[in-house]
Amino acid sequence: MALLLDFYGELLTEKQKEYLDLYYNEDFSLAEIARPRGITPQGVRDLTRRGEGILRDTETKTGLLARFTQISGTAGEIREKLQRIEARTGDETLTPLFQEIYRDLETLDLG
Amino acid sequence: MALLLDFYGELLTEKQKEYLDLYYNEDFSLAEIARPRGITPQGVRDLTRRGEGILRDTETKTGLLARFTQISGTAGEIREKLQRIEARTGDETLTPLFQEIYRDLETLDLG
Repeated sequence: MALLLDFYGELLTEKQKEYLDLYYNEDFSLAEIARPRGITPQGVRDLTRRGEGILRDTETKTGLLARFTQISGTAGEIREKLQRIEARTGDETLTPLFQEIYRDLETLDLG
Repeated sequence: MALLLDFYGELLTEKQKEYLDLYYNEDFSLAEIARPRGITPQGVRDLTRRGEGILRDTETKTGLLARFTQISGTAGEIREKLQRIEARTGDETLTPLFQEIYRDLETLDLG
C-alpha cells in the first residue's frame, strides 16, 4: 500500500493522501489520526478505505506498479550478470565503465 | 498522446478510449469517427478533449510516463557502455552473457 501511495497518491484528495500517509508510512493508528482532528476513528477508516480503493483500482487498470517492479527485478539480474562478466575480465581499465553501469542500474530500482 | 493512451487509457470510459484510439492510433478523422455512429464531429471532439484532459492530468500528477521514458533512456546508455566493454574484452566465451543482458535491456524499452 505504501508503494501504491507513492505511485498514485497524487490522484487522491489531500485528506485521503494525508491520512493514508500517516497510517501506512508514519504508523499512526486510526485513533491517533482521528483525535486531533475531532473526528471518529470510523470516519478516518471510511476515508482511508475509499482512498485505498482508488489506489488499488488504478493499479488494476494500469498495471504500472507491476511494470516497475519487474523493471527493478530485471535491473537486479543485469547487475548480477555484469558482476560475473567483470570477475572474468582481468582488465582494470574497464572498472570505471562497470562502475558507471552499476550507478545507472541503481536509478532503475524502485523508490 | 498515443503513449499517454497506452499508459492510462484504462482510466477512461470505453467511448473515450475507443475514440482516442481511432483518432491517434488509427488516424481516423473526427468526421470518420462521427459518421457511422450518427453523431457530429463536434460531439466526438468534446469527448476526445475530455479524455485527453484526463490523460494529461494523470501524467501531471503521477509523472509515471516521464519516469518510464527516463528508464528507456538509461537502458540505452547501459547498452552503449556494455558494447564498449564487449569490444574491449577479447573473451568470446562471454558472448552469451552479453547477449542475455542485451535481451534484458530490450524489455526496459518503452512499448
